[in-house]
Amino acid sequence: MTQSIPDRRLHLNVGINTTGYLGNAWKYARLKPRDVTDIQHYLRLARLAHKGVFDAVFLSDMPLLRPDPASRPLHTFDPLILLTAIAASVPDIGLVATVSSTYNSPYNLARRAQTLDLISGGRLILNIVSNFVPEVAANFGNDPLPPRDVRYPRAEEFLEVAKKLWSSWDWDAEGEKPEGQFWDTNAVEPIAHDGEYFAVRGALNVPRSRQGHPVIAQAGGSDRGIDLAARHGEIIYCNILSRGAGQAFRQRVTERAIAAGRDPSEIRLTPGLVAIIGESREEALRKHELFSGAGSEDGLLVRFTREHGIDPHDFDPDAPLDVERFIPDPGRITAIGFTQGLVDLLTHERLTARQVVRRAEGNHRLILGTAEEIADQIIDLWADGTVDGYTYQPPRAPDDIEEFVDKVIPILQDRGVYPTAYDDRTVRERFGLPHPAARARPSMPAESLA
Amino acid sequence: MTQSIPDRRLHLNVGINTTGYLGNAWKYARLKPRDVTDIQHYLRLARLAHKGVFDAVFLSDMPLLRPDPASRPLHTFDPLILLTAIAASVPDIGLVATVSSTYNSPYNLARRAQTLDLISGGRLILNIVSNFVPEVAANFGNDPLPPRDVRYPRAEEFLEVAKKLWSSWDWDAEGEKPEGQFWDTNAVEPIAHDGEYFAVRGALNVPRSRQGHPVIAQAGGSDRGIDLAARHGEIIYCNILSRGAGQAFRQRVTERAIAAGRDPSEIRLTPGLVAIIGESREEALRKHELFSGAGSEDGLLVRFTREHGIDPHDFDPDAPLDVERFIPDPGRITAIGFTQGLVDLLTHERLTARQVVRRAEGNHRLILGTAEEIADQIIDLWADGTVDGYTYQPPRAPDDIEEFVDKVIPILQDRGVYPTAYDDRTVRERFGLPHPAARARPSMPAESLA
Repeated sequence: MTQSIPDRRLHLNVGINTTGYLGNAWKYARLKPRDVTDIQHYLRLARLAHKGVFDAVFLSDMPLLRPDPASRPLHTFDPLILLTAIAASVPDIGLVATVSSTYNSPYNLARRAQTLDLISGGRLILNIVSNFVPEVAANFGNDPLPPRDVRYPRAEEFLEVAKKLWSSWDWDAEGEKPEGQFWDTNAVEPIAHDGEYFAVRGALNVPRSRQGHPVIAQAGGSDRGIDLAARHGEIIYCNILSRGAGQAFRQRVTERAIAAGRDPSEIRLTPGLVAIIGESREEALRKHELFSGAGSEDGLLVRFTREHGIDPHDFDPDAPLDVERFIPDPGRITAIGFTQGLVDLLTHERLTARQVVRRAEGNHRLILGTAEEIADQIIDLWADGTVDGYTYQPPRAPDDIEEFVDKVIPILQDRGVYPTAYDDRTVRERFGLPHPAARARPSMPAESLA
Repeated sequence: MTQSIPDRRLHLNVGINTTGYLGNAWKYARLKPRDVTDIQHYLRLARLAHKGVFDAVFLSDMPLLRPDPASRPLHTFDPLILLTAIAASVPDIGLVATVSSTYNSPYNLARRAQTLDLISGGRLILNIVSNFVPEVAANFGNDPLPPRDVRYPRAEEFLEVAKKLWSSWDWDAEGEKPEGQFWDTNAVEPIAHDGEYFAVRGALNVPRSRQGHPVIAQAGGSDRGIDLAARHGEIIYCNILSRGAGQAFRQRVTERAIAAGRDPSEIRLTPGLVAIIGESREEALRKHELFSGAGSEDGLLVRFTREHGIDPHDFDPDAPLDVERFIPDPGRITAIGFTQGLVDLLTHERLTARQVVRRAEGNHRLILGTAEEIADQIIDLWADGTVDGYTYQPPRAPDDIEEFVDKVIPILQDRGVYPTAYDDRTVRERFGLPHPAARARPSMPAESLA
């Protein structure tokens, strides 16, 4: 399915978590360990991203510290606080904050997000997730993580409440203001939400922003996650490893969006992407083996068998894989979306393990080669509308952001698919997404018509 | 009680909520209504405060919007987000964020606060309050506000958990780091808190900051509030309307701090202060009548009778007031601390209503007069250690901050009690408060000693 938006362009976000996306790649990065808790590190990454005219910087998140000596903490600073500091120091660039609908209250979170959206002039994208890691629950009480069939309806109602709150105070709804009044309080209307999971009276004490409210991103790849994306997602961060898988995913989202009464052309797919650039494809392959921590192609294959519970002695890395054995159990508690990417890949392409280990890294699409080859592969799935762009996850920060900005971005610009500068639009406008409607103005009360 | 800290100096914070402290004074202010939701307004206020070498900007807060046409919203932007934007744009100045222990979870709040404390280089003061306004509860579910005897123990345990979290990851606790390890994870220790109100495993995913963790401010004036202040408060924001009342308050806090095992010299009192400057005292009195919304001295007296349920027909504004009739019912749900200020004043001074209405405004100490007289009155209660300074609440923003900075600050500087520039210290060091101890290093496990 292609899109008909006339000024369609390639969108790129870039992940800026701690040392980069791959847990072992820090060994080959230029940063010092304590940089991960130094604001200057993140400002440097955001400035690099700005130089590369990225649409947005992206922070994944989990309210959890896993002290693994061999790896690094992937999530430290609170995303909304960190992105506020970035917004104050780096112009133009959009800001994707991942936030949990499981362990937040809608009033507080809607308020924090809207504050940043106002302060930044309409640059916030809120990636609402439902936590899937059981250890997170232990930081929020003695109860275990709620099951998926509670988390998702709760996330959905959470967004419903947040959207009501975001339009509950609208300066533009002011009418005539009598002398001596600070404001026309018709601009404010309590929401009086009383649902299954939340009761919130409102109004929010932060008004609508230049872009109405933050753009809603959605990152779940499970069946429930796709439903949530279809209802509320404007930007979808997902795992798409091939054209066939991407088109099938788009189709699923489109059907459900239509069923939910939405226009599917108002949804952008920007799946994760790991790009590793070399002077040659061979060099990129060697870097992949190092950055992944596997050390060699054999190491990648060993890791593959371990991750999927395959007996390595009874395994031919050059035999086509049988998709059936990878289908995840829908009853399991951890994220379904990640394995689903592999299943979708094998559904559409006949591949061996040796091929598969070069197609995905950290569950995202992996592309390897020279800067030209990287640019080609990025444009390839974008050109026919399979995706609208990518969320580039650099293996190392700052090194791979810098290399991507210096080598790949100029090619994309030369090909005319990617901008060379920012304009003054909000991030919502830049993604071609519709401005959210203001809440319906209350009609004249019946008495006053009598 | 006087303090023996050699470099004792006058401390001043300044409130920067929306239009200023007094609900009606915006009519005489230079701002436009929509400035209250414009980041540029707050940056202007913070830059004025920086010019005046204030210790900190102060944001009171309530997660609630009251659409009162005659007044203005006092609380809009989320304080931690707004202060992050200020920290990124204005150097040196401390940042006081008011946050609710009633409607937050310790892990999330400790994380947000510590992120800002790190990003700002040790400038955060966290004013932990327990919400006292019943309407706030309606933004967080169908349950009414918890009673005071639940809110305060919860607030206390909240702080206990936050402090444990703030020392649960400490880069300085790293030992030898084997080759190929990102960090020595001995720097991290889960807190495994399991109490009456909270169960939190930890560790926090944000490390200790330059000042250890945010300075703790406390603002409750009830008996329970003073207990909390005595246990955890480092800076106390309170209502002190006279020397006698201030000394009695300090005495109460000191005794309870000692009973709780704390050194009372590690507590600073910076009560609220409303200062109204005129070319003459007469002019200041007229400005007070305007800014308060009362319009005249008679108006102030009418308001006084209304606020205290006094029959105006049977009332002599020039007769000494009987303290007994103002003692608040300890069972009531709303803030006790505010009325307590008046009771404490009348306990120590014999005053008429005509005098009382010029001693407090918005429940804080009111001082009126020329810039010289204002400076004298500020220094008066500070010089003998009754207070350590003030939290100046400007009636109007930006007007009264500007006037205070231009006219009063230079006098305080000339008198040698107030600094003329910032130094590079953390806000904790600037207030002469002790650096929080790192968590006890785990001793060698018994097995390893065998």
